Amino acid sequence: VSVTAIEGFEAAGIASGIKPSGNPDLALVATADRVPVTAAGVFTTNLATAAPVQVSRAHLADGKAAAVVLNSGNANAATGEPGRADARRMCELTAQGLGTATTDVLVCSTGLIGIPMPMEPVESGIPRLCAEIAPGADAGHRAARALMTTDTKPKESLADADMGDGRHLHVGGMAKGAAMLQPAMATMLAVLTTDAVVGPDALHAALERAVQDSFNALIVDACTSTNDTVLVLANGAAGGPEIGTSGHAYHALVEALTAVCDDLAHQMAADAEGATKLARLTVRGARSSDEARRAARAVAASQLVQCSLYGQDPYWGRVLSELGASGAFLDPERVDISYNGVTVCRHGVAALHDETALRASMTQRDIDIVCDLHAGRGEARVRFTDLTHAYVDENMGTS
Amino acid sequence: VSVTAIEGFEAAGIASGIKPSGNPDLALVATADRVPVTAAGVFTTNLATAAPVQVSRAHLADGKAAAVVLNSGNANAATGEPGRADARRMCELTAQGLGTATTDVLVCSTGLIGIPMPMEPVESGIPRLCAEIAPGADAGHRAARALMTTDTKPKESLADADMGDGRHLHVGGMAKGAAMLQPAMATMLAVLTTDAVVGPDALHAALERAVQDSFNALIVDACTSTNDTVLVLANGAAGGPEIGTSGHAYHALVEALTAVCDDLAHQMAADAEGATKLARLTVRGARSSDEARRAARAVAASQLVQCSLYGQDPYWGRVLSELGASGAFLDPERVDISYNGVTVCRHGVAALHDETALRASMTQRDIDIVCDLHAGRGEARVRFTDLTHAYVDENMGTS
Repeated sequence: VSVTAIEGFEAAGIASGIKPSGNPDLALVATADRVPVTAAGVFTTNLATAAPVQVSRAHLADGKAAAVVLNSGNANAATGEPGRADARRMCELTAQGLGTATTDVLVCSTGLIGIPMPMEPVESGIPRLCAEIAPGADAGHRAARALMTTDTKPKESLADADMGDGRHLHVGGMAKGAAMLQPAMATMLAVLTTDAVVGPDALHAALERAVQDSFNALIVDACTSTNDTVLVLANGAAGGPEIGTSGHAYHALVEALTAVCDDLAHQMAADAEGATKLARLTVRGARSSDEARRAARAVAASQLVQCSLYGQDPYWGRVLSELGASGAFLDPERVDISYNGVTVCRHGVAALHDETALRASMTQRDIDIVCDLHAGRGEARVRFTDLTHAYVDENMGTS
Repeated sequence: VSVTAIEGFEAAGIASGIKPSGNPDLALVATADRVPVTAAGVFTTNLATAAPVQVSRAHLADGKAAAVVLNSGNANAATGEPGRADARRMCELTAQGLGTATTDVLVCSTGLIGIPMPMEPVESGIPRLCAEIAPGADAGHRAARALMTTDTKPKESLADADMGDGRHLHVGGMAKGAAMLQPAMATMLAVLTTDAVVGPDALHAALERAVQDSFNALIVDACTSTNDTVLVLANGAAGGPEIGTSGHAYHALVEALTAVCDDLAHQMAADAEGATKLARLTVRGARSSDEARRAARAVAASQLVQCSLYGQDPYWGRVLSELGASGAFLDPERVDISYNGVTVCRHGVAALHDETALRASMTQRDIDIVCDLHAGRGEARVRFTDLTHAYVDENMGTS
């Protein structure tokens, strides 16, 4: 159930000493034969992009990659030209260890911002990492563990989809992320592998679709990080004709990528720093799906709504207020809001309901909120978490 | 030092029973002779406007008002047509009590959203409120106290400015607000009085200018409420020619209104729910002042930046990340960031500094953060507060 679940991919994860704790901090995913395959990436929209994002973008220019090297414990962000040199050096060390070209290696980092990469452990660690690369679930699991920062669990997933002719394509993935999770995108790294036969343009289009409805529909604290990266390598082992940007096989690829991304996003939300609630918010009846998304994100990012959830309080007035302030069009006196299937607001005013039953259902971890604006056919769904004492604890200090 | 500090204005504040606690909950400001004077208002940009906002906007159509009646303990928001009828009834009761026209009374409410106004205490309270109206500081103070919700202190202010010919105009004000504070605007109510001789258009223009640089530059939790209202009544007692929309006297009016609004905003920030830090953030060197404002608000609204402040941690990496994600243009490798005058980031990377001295200064309540994007001449300043355990406590539940 990981990147190595796809035939032809290997992985490794070790502790190099980047993290003072001695926990695993270097991960590697590569093709078994070290030959570059089709690759695509989706990166943070933050203008202050970390060095590894800049280097990976450049190395992806030809739509090919043979390996991805990742570290936790340092974001290599806000590190200037020395940071870019360090990110390039990580690719070079990996290429030397695997016998491939430097530009066929992609690189990701996660951790604190503004601190130079500790290159001593990296210099000795990457050769060891390359020596330990192996096929199989254990190797994939070690890689996923080495991505963790404040995550409490590694995040791995696997999906498949029928290409329409009885043959299946498969997608495996691993990810990290437990804070700074927000549309477009989270402090999150994900590496996916697939056996689909596909060129870089179709793979990139499919990945963007998959990210939009999964990682980009997840909000923890509405912060868009400097390092967010989702990468996919496609080695074609599934066989069959090349997948284009439409047709049954393309939709199968989108479906399997989305399934893996969505599962990983769900695992992230469930592991969100200090969260006690996992909310799913649907906004429907907006004038457009863009406006639905905007409205859903405004509600999900609201500290007051998040605090209410922590207090198990179905205070829909705050939801209505955030919808009204979101910039999406609405007539407040047409808005309906429900919590866990119980309509608490109808036509913009309080609706009679069984308050005792609703309060009882608010003690569950999973909370389902639906807002209908009755202004059109636009719909969007986001996941978010509550704002808790533990979240504040986790983010008060860096030391 | 309040609305009654201006000659010709009276006020009152009583406990009517809207609040189960028995604390004061009805306030009144009116002209001493009950004759309507020039009036202007700035209201929330939230589409889900509360009933009193809708009624006050309608009653302001003629640019005149004689009184403002306000209640705390219930927002009369998300209450539909019955809520509008209740807001109109509050104006009617006040008009009957004062001997003026219903449309010359403005109304404001603050408290919980989605609960019908308890009209019994209002029906008996407003006549009593009108009977108690009086000139002088004590009456002004009672009015300011009756606005409080989660505020721990009443908020009052007074300023004056030279109109250029040796004569002075004066502005008094009172306000409430301790959460949901965010540009455009906060859950905040403010009533200002002035003796300036001015028509409604010039008064409205001056008020908008004053609000922009004061209340709209204050962020507590980035929530824009359903009820935000700033009202000003101008009775012309200062004498002299009518103030237009330019010239020395107009600027004096803007200056005095801004001084009062800014002082009230500062009192709100200092009283923000559960806050331990009061930060002033300046973004300069943006391509435009709009982009500077956008960048400043993004940083100030960031849960992660707010948590860092609570932890007294000058973690500038989060500030840079929020600047980069704000939508304002920047080249991250030209950005400088300082905390309390100490440059911690120069050209987008860590700057050597005396960490011990900076950590010591981070224990102060007031924190000064300056970001220079070096991309233009746009500048903006916002105030914001930290995200604390006490904030979470305060906003977990409504009961």
